[in-house]
Amino acid sequence: MKTDYPELNPAERILLGPGPSDVSARVLAAMAKPTLGHLDPEYLAIMDDTRRLLQHVFRTTNELTIAMPGTGSAGMETCVANLVEPGDEVIIGVCGYFGARMVEMAERHGAAVHRVEAPWGEIIDPAAIGRALADHPATKVVGVVHAETSTGAHQPLEEISALAHAAGALLLVDAVTSLGCVELRLDDWAIDACYSCSQKGLSSPPGLAPVSFSPMAAERIKGRKSRVRSWYLDLSLVSRYWSSDRVYHHTASSNLGYALYEGLRMVAEEGLDARQTRHLDHHRALRAGLEALGLSYIPERSLPNLNAVRVPDGADDPDVRKRLLNEYGIEIGAGLGPFAGKAWRIGIMGSSCTQRNVILVLGALESILGDMGVAVPKGAAITAASGVFAS
Amino acid sequence: MKTDYPELNPAERILLGPGPSDVSARVLAAMAKPTLGHLDPEYLAIMDDTRRLLQHVFRTTNELTIAMPGTGSAGMETCVANLVEPGDEVIIGVCGYFGARMVEMAERHGAAVHRVEAPWGEIIDPAAIGRALADHPATKVVGVVHAETSTGAHQPLEEISALAHAAGALLLVDAVTSLGCVELRLDDWAIDACYSCSQKGLSSPPGLAPVSFSPMAAERIKGRKSRVRSWYLDLSLVSRYWSSDRVYHHTASSNLGYALYEGLRMVAEEGLDARQTRHLDHHRALRAGLEALGLSYIPERSLPNLNAVRVPDGADDPDVRKRLLNEYGIEIGAGLGPFAGKAWRIGIMGSSCTQRNVILVLGALESILGDMGVAVPKGAAITAASGVFAS
Repeated sequence: MKTDYPELNPAERILLGPGPSDVSARVLAAMAKPTLGHLDPEYLAIMDDTRRLLQHVFRTTNELTIAMPGTGSAGMETCVANLVEPGDEVIIGVCGYFGARMVEMAERHGAAVHRVEAPWGEIIDPAAIGRALADHPATKVVGVVHAETSTGAHQPLEEISALAHAAGALLLVDAVTSLGCVELRLDDWAIDACYSCSQKGLSSPPGLAPVSFSPMAAERIKGRKSRVRSWYLDLSLVSRYWSSDRVYHHTASSNLGYALYEGLRMVAEEGLDARQTRHLDHHRALRAGLEALGLSYIPERSLPNLNAVRVPDGADDPDVRKRLLNEYGIEIGAGLGPFAGKAWRIGIMGSSCTQRNVILVLGALESILGDMGVAVPKGAAITAASGVFAS
Repeated sequence: MKTDYPELNPAERILLGPGPSDVSARVLAAMAKPTLGHLDPEYLAIMDDTRRLLQHVFRTTNELTIAMPGTGSAGMETCVANLVEPGDEVIIGVCGYFGARMVEMAERHGAAVHRVEAPWGEIIDPAAIGRALADHPATKVVGVVHAETSTGAHQPLEEISALAHAAGALLLVDAVTSLGCVELRLDDWAIDACYSCSQKGLSSPPGLAPVSFSPMAAERIKGRKSRVRSWYLDLSLVSRYWSSDRVYHHTASSNLGYALYEGLRMVAEEGLDARQTRHLDHHRALRAGLEALGLSYIPERSLPNLNAVRVPDGADDPDVRKRLLNEYGIEIGAGLGPFAGKAWRIGIMGSSCTQRNVILVLGALESILGDMGVAVPKGAAITAASGVFAS
């Protein structure tokens, strides 16, 4: 048996894909602080501050606001598994990969799912949700994706929220790619359940999933007639560990907790409004540059922090991504599902959202595409982006 | 909204509880290396090496050997959720908290569970498993806990394995507290499914759950008639990410992956046999010292790496633990369930298992208990432990 393995020496990437985003030296240093036990009074104090910081970024006073011990998908399944009981009718908007994932989870937890579909890259028409609610008046939950990571589409939520609540349903929102980058207001928009991740807008490493539940959602969960099908994701158990009871459920990773805390602290220091503006400003510059290169956006309503563009004619998709990675250390995202080979997803999230990175990725794309024989106007991208930054 | 939160400055504990164990500076430094994307070729190479290292510590050639993105309990639920289909008969040995947890999970995933019980602190009699198998010949899975973290009991597995297989059942083993400390041989002992954690014998931070499945268990999972109830823990999806297909499932935490890799590398460097011997030797010294202090072990068959002793008359349980923490920075574990207030659980696992820590915890206990008026013979504990170390 081989027992001699190499020392770790990972490359220093610039993470401009759909996540993870760049993790700052400050967050990495926080994560490497000495491990505390999951019931150490010092760690419990950090959890309490983390809850307050999560409430801040979610813009909510929800008491049931915690970080689940898993990735964003564990956050999705936490929401679905706890809100849904077998036989419950659920409406889910599907216009990309992650809406479809929510459907699959809801089915596994016993829901009768009614899909409201739109083509990939588009958003869900609130009127279609309204019609589905009229067709299925017993609907318990309406689920939509705020930021569809597979297409870059930015879904407005307020109208859907009003429709769901008028029909007596709860609103469940996927904010995996929006939290910390894009305006998101749990209380103002009456979102009942929301999940996200640690590694995009919050620029911590992956591994934790912030979730938040309105008092109405918490009541619904409390009144369940059946046990949640997943023990690991059962909020009635996990929330007791986050409560003053501190009942042991799982061994929380204090080091991941430090990283999330530090990432959240950096969000709070910058200010949520300023942070949203930063993402919008950099998006405008990046967009001007990408369009000057001749690249077209896939979604009509693009997220600022995740830019999905069509792979241009004459470009070899895997080769472009490989050259970005090998020559520049830049990671961008490939297309998923029907967009495989047809889309690039360029993320500027959290710590990755800098003028330096915008100019670099534009320059690198111009160089690689030109080298590949794609007709790109020389210097136009940098000029266009610089013009936005200067304005 | 308060946005000013303190800089992290966690205390440097000595972790002598039931987990997490001490994380070395080397592992913490590895974890803080630059974050890689979950599909970065460099990270995929680290995953491949991690699988080989996990096979090494599990002593198996099982192809389906991976690290699940959650804590040890997520590993438990992964095994249960994937092996069990609704209506399946399952036999589970219960002589502590974690056997009971396995029962609860199996029920949530639809199993008809037959418990084989023993009092807390004892082990499961293989003959009782044999009788249960005779009573329930359709049993699909027998689940037992190798190292019962709540009681410190060390369960022998070989006889139970033979009985399970003779009856056509698969053997599922909880090795959360044994992997990397105590002899554990998946292939030699014909264990079909096994789960553990990153933060005990492997001395990495919590957050990942090594699991391994025999070819027979993998076949069983492949032939399921129903979907696994948890999407996040569905091996048919997660294993495709670990396979050469690299199909996206979740955003793996590269930083946690680095820490696990480095912890495993340290195990391989030391050698598994040497590591087991180290735990046995330090256990003998600790045991001699604890018994010299007048403390008695709860389980007849104690794990070497987790030492559960009775709280002595005259000692104030929470006060002793608080003083160990505040005066010495030492964390030990409290009793769980029926042992609450009655037991201390002293772990010497992985990087925590040193002569320095054994002598320190004995000295600290002697000082605190003496100060509290418990009759402890002066110097006897250190003398007894030193004698073992010198032998």
